[in-house]
Amino acid sequence: MGDNVHVDVLILGAGPAGLMAAAWMAQTGVQTLLVEQRPYGTQNGRADGLESRTLEILDSFGLADKIWAEANHTVEIALWSESDAGILQREGISANTEPGWSRFYESTLGQGRVEEHLLNFIQSNRHINIRQATIPTSLEIDYNTVEDHGSYPIRVQLDKAAPTAFPGRGNARPSSDPSTPSSESSMALNSDDSAIGGMGTVVKAKYLVGCDGAHSWLRKQLGVGLEGESSGHHWGVLDIVPITNFPDIRKRFIVKSKFGTLMMVPRERRLVRVYVELSPTTSAQYTEQPNPTIIMNQVSGIMQPYVMKTNHIDWYTTYKVGQRLCPKVSFHNRIFLAGDAIHTHSPKAGQGMNVSMQDTYNLGWKLASVIYGASPPDILDTYAQERLPIAQRLLQLDQRICRGMCRIEGSDLVPRGNFDEDHKRAIREENTSASGLTATYQPNQLISPAAETEDAKGASFVSKPHLAETIKLGARIPSQLVLSQSDSQAYHLQQIFRSTGQWNLIIFGGNISKTEQMARVHHQADALSNPESYFQQLNKASAVRGGVGSVRVYLVHSADRNSIDIFSLPAIFRPLCDDGGIDYSRVLVDNKSYHHPGGGELYKTFGIHPEGCMVLLRPDQHVAFLSSMDDIHGLQGFLSTCTCL
Amino acid sequence: MGDNVHVDVLILGAGPAGLMAAAWMAQTGVQTLLVEQRPYGTQNGRADGLESRTLEILDSFGLADKIWAEANHTVEIALWSESDAGILQREGISANTEPGWSRFYESTLGQGRVEEHLLNFIQSNRHINIRQATIPTSLEIDYNTVEDHGSYPIRVQLDKAAPTAFPGRGNARPSSDPSTPSSESSMALNSDDSAIGGMGTVVKAKYLVGCDGAHSWLRKQLGVGLEGESSGHHWGVLDIVPITNFPDIRKRFIVKSKFGTLMMVPRERRLVRVYVELSPTTSAQYTEQPNPTIIMNQVSGIMQPYVMKTNHIDWYTTYKVGQRLCPKVSFHNRIFLAGDAIHTHSPKAGQGMNVSMQDTYNLGWKLASVIYGASPPDILDTYAQERLPIAQRLLQLDQRICRGMCRIEGSDLVPRGNFDEDHKRAIREENTSASGLTATYQPNQLISPAAETEDAKGASFVSKPHLAETIKLGARIPSQLVLSQSDSQAYHLQQIFRSTGQWNLIIFGGNISKTEQMARVHHQADALSNPESYFQQLNKASAVRGGVGSVRVYLVHSADRNSIDIFSLPAIFRPLCDDGGIDYSRVLVDNKSYHHPGGGELYKTFGIHPEGCMVLLRPDQHVAFLSSMDDIHGLQGFLSTCTCL
Repeated sequence: MGDNVHVDVLILGAGPAGLMAAAWMAQTGVQTLLVEQRPYGTQNGRADGLESRTLEILDSFGLADKIWAEANHTVEIALWSESDAGILQREGISANTEPGWSRFYESTLGQGRVEEHLLNFIQSNRHINIRQATIPTSLEIDYNTVEDHGSYPIRVQLDKAAPTAFPGRGNARPSSDPSTPSSESSMALNSDDSAIGGMGTVVKAKYLVGCDGAHSWLRKQLGVGLEGESSGHHWGVLDIVPITNFPDIRKRFIVKSKFGTLMMVPRERRLVRVYVELSPTTSAQYTEQPNPTIIMNQVSGIMQPYVMKTNHIDWYTTYKVGQRLCPKVSFHNRIFLAGDAIHTHSPKAGQGMNVSMQDTYNLGWKLASVIYGASPPDILDTYAQERLPIAQRLLQLDQRICRGMCRIEGSDLVPRGNFDEDHKRAIREENTSASGLTATYQPNQLISPAAETEDAKGASFVSKPHLAETIKLGARIPSQLVLSQSDSQAYHLQQIFRSTGQWNLIIFGGNISKTEQMARVHHQADALSNPESYFQQLNKASAVRGGVGSVRVYLVHSADRNSIDIFSLPAIFRPLCDDGGIDYSRVLVDNKSYHHPGGGELYKTFGIHPEGCMVLLRPDQHVAFLSSMDDIHGLQGFLSTCTCL
Repeated sequence: MGDNVHVDVLILGAGPAGLMAAAWMAQTGVQTLLVEQRPYGTQNGRADGLESRTLEILDSFGLADKIWAEANHTVEIALWSESDAGILQREGISANTEPGWSRFYESTLGQGRVEEHLLNFIQSNRHINIRQATIPTSLEIDYNTVEDHGSYPIRVQLDKAAPTAFPGRGNARPSSDPSTPSSESSMALNSDDSAIGGMGTVVKAKYLVGCDGAHSWLRKQLGVGLEGESSGHHWGVLDIVPITNFPDIRKRFIVKSKFGTLMMVPRERRLVRVYVELSPTTSAQYTEQPNPTIIMNQVSGIMQPYVMKTNHIDWYTTYKVGQRLCPKVSFHNRIFLAGDAIHTHSPKAGQGMNVSMQDTYNLGWKLASVIYGASPPDILDTYAQERLPIAQRLLQLDQRICRGMCRIEGSDLVPRGNFDEDHKRAIREENTSASGLTATYQPNQLISPAAETEDAKGASFVSKPHLAETIKLGARIPSQLVLSQSDSQAYHLQQIFRSTGQWNLIIFGGNISKTEQMARVHHQADALSNPESYFQQLNKASAVRGGVGSVRVYLVHSADRNSIDIFSLPAIFRPLCDDGGIDYSRVLVDNKSYHHPGGGELYKTFGIHPEGCMVLLRPDQHVAFLSSMDDIHGLQGFLSTCTCL
């Protein structure tokens, strides 16, 4: 009672954004307190869509296998509209996720399950304390010390949350209240009263991350608000086990009939998520008496002549369509807002959980790097620079999708349903660009500009992106199957670059069975092996930082692997381990695999120059620097602007 | 003390064979007692090879994902011999497992880890009791009741095992003693003293399964022995983290040099398993003082001019090459021997753990079926009929491999190393036929003979294997990628047929967008849906047997899935679930997948007749009956000979 604790990072909110922030802290060993108002985790309902990029990110923490196995993979999307004769008919069917963009594709799994997997990961780390049923009650900032990043200028008072009466199975505000927990899926959050005191605790923190949802307490304390308007369109949301004769019920589908518009997404455990536009009449009825049967009746009406009933409603809610954005997301590089606290939108694009987790995936490694002294504090400027444009684009996409799906405002009348081209295009973009796969951050302190561009003016160290045509500066590295030189085991390139707080330098050495390419590889390795080099000094410095901020180096070549003796390669590509054995994981080849399709395609699809190139990846797999193999000066110069010895 | 317990099945030995037997009992809910002499699980060393078929089997219990992720996948094998100039050189390199036979390929994982995964699965079932540090001391059989399969004619006295002195890190008898457990991997077996009494317990059992190893106590009680000879060749075995400059160290490889012969197999945790032939001199040295350095010196000598050292020996042992077989493996259809208790051989083909698990995978479902009254007791005859020929073939293969790798008996001289054709062929067979993938059981009560063959004479119900050219009667069903009709999710066909004790009937309906094929499907479905049919009566009867012995029906068609409305198909292919929802898992299509390679190839590679066919799979995925879709008489007739209403 009344005790004081010091933590490096205080995170408000244990939803997807807060848990992803905490996952970084767990992985890098940063002292963190995670505070959650609810006394239990998410039980059912809420967000459910998992985009490809989110799965790639979860995989970088080793969490995708289980989530992928548990999720329902949404392979196809069907569009249904009315024929000239007024009969519901399938207008088209296509892949829900464009093939080839990622080794994952869109899937659905209840937010509660995703949170549970993240939580299990976080709880296995002793640096993270979690306090459930706890709320912040006051915030103070010491502006005298805010510039000194060794100080704890943030003071937050915590108190027990008022006991929550478990609401009914559904609820009218999906962003705030959970619905009834089912006993078998009840998730106990780890509560460590001995480490962090109970009521009236004062937390002094270096950094504060607000992942406390659309009604963010922190945002209110900071005096900023969401900007934008809610439209008058009311939508109902249901999770049901359907009883139906509709043939596409296990696909994602959108129906536009004269009775209204709905979208369904198949889920795990034979559930289906339904989004249905409520007519003004239905909406008024529901407001008077919030009964899911009212929503279900609307659904059945739209689906006629198909049968659509249910004996099992797992969760329900309603929402008003609206796109709202918080224009300021970081404060003194000490306090950050993320997730629903900075962007709210309709759930129809299945983006909510994804963009929220991607926000803190962007922020987390930067915080850890600054806390360890591995990067200068001003890299934190890049959080707002990088994530606000993403949020803006998300809201624009959501507007287009809503425009395609909503009736004329305030009217019970529905025009004859059809899918205009922009709506179809928006649906396609949802799973490629909008999913985070093509999220491309503009040149900044952590992304070097391309030579001979406007951004490069005045820049000391520039990239040469033409050396790898489809690798985009600022975007996540694409992936292709590669083999390990030592044992020919197959991996997706992205699988190599785990989220550990380390940077990764890929030397695309080309066909090293040619003397001149092998010479280039040796030349580069010699430079990087020089004990006086910035590269070596940085790795030496990062050894006491748990490896955070170090640079791991990989060689990916395109020669026939059997023509290359791994021991003829520079020693930097086969480092020694503590037990005297060798780390054989650093040399990869672009060769065909016996058992897996797709090997031997990397150099071609990445458009890599015959003389090779090198690509520096940030700890979040985004491309920071790309140049020729001999540009050691550029590489080390760029590194020196965003890392510290 | 001195108490009596009754169990359906008593299993002696919690190695791979015993645990696989117990896995079936856990899955089907049979009251079982598993007794293990050791007070702890396998810590390190021992068997390590996992063949494709074993991984398929583990996957059918839901256990392959974790094991596959943890194992080291052995992609390639390199053969090294001496050049004319007497220098070690790579003779060839090739896939270690022939691609295309299975979705898995040969991998290595320590026996202890495989056992732990099986044990976790078994312990989650309350029907299984496990007693560690316990030995059987006497066996009595009541011959008066042995024919009555409701009785408990087997009486086994159990006692606490004498405390085991932990032996050193290595041991000279790999089949009996474990080596030192490391504290972090120590595995506690579930000991339930309240359920099963301690010392002097008398167990009365319906069935007894002896998986108690090469020195089987049970085999001795039954008065049978292993037949065959051990040769004079001594081999040393090491698990080490190597320090080397040998380029193929992370591949499986065999070296034949003038200094001797060895094989290495890469393992998990950067370990390498080494098998090395010991010269008579080395062998004598080791016998005098069992020190792994003696073995390691032999290894270093053979590998010269390459460096081969180690700072970490994880496990070591020696063995004498020999192939021995127990000619009698079942007794009164009440007592069965399996695994090392019935076949011992050299570990060089990596088959030990595999064939042992495959023995009890064959036996387990049959025992459960008889115990539930779902099949007549005489199906147990098929255990010896099916597994003894497999054991014989394994020993023949092992002899060929040993012949290729062993020096002239009793001599320190080694002829110049080379790989003769039979040795190379034997290595190839190891991962295809020998791995269990092509294990083909001959016609018997559970495998119907092919029409117009010698076996078919006098048989009432015969198969027509020409309707699916590459599906072999008696072999496991091959696999190809298929899509689910309802949601286009991709599965390997084999993944559908879990090990539950149920049979599976696959209707290969062909191109059902053609009227005549759709008519055939409807005709068959009508017959199977008739409440008077044997099929319906059997499924009704099996409802009270936890589903054991029931037949699940699947339709796999080759029409374009979007041309087929699942609700136009017979109701038998979309059964109702308890909650009113529909089981959409029963209709699969041979179409291309957007995201996974290999779809749309099943009908072609299986060679399925344009008019389709039906294939009945036993609970272990082996093909029992194959006929035309209209041969309902044959199907039900065959079923009636091996199942009970």
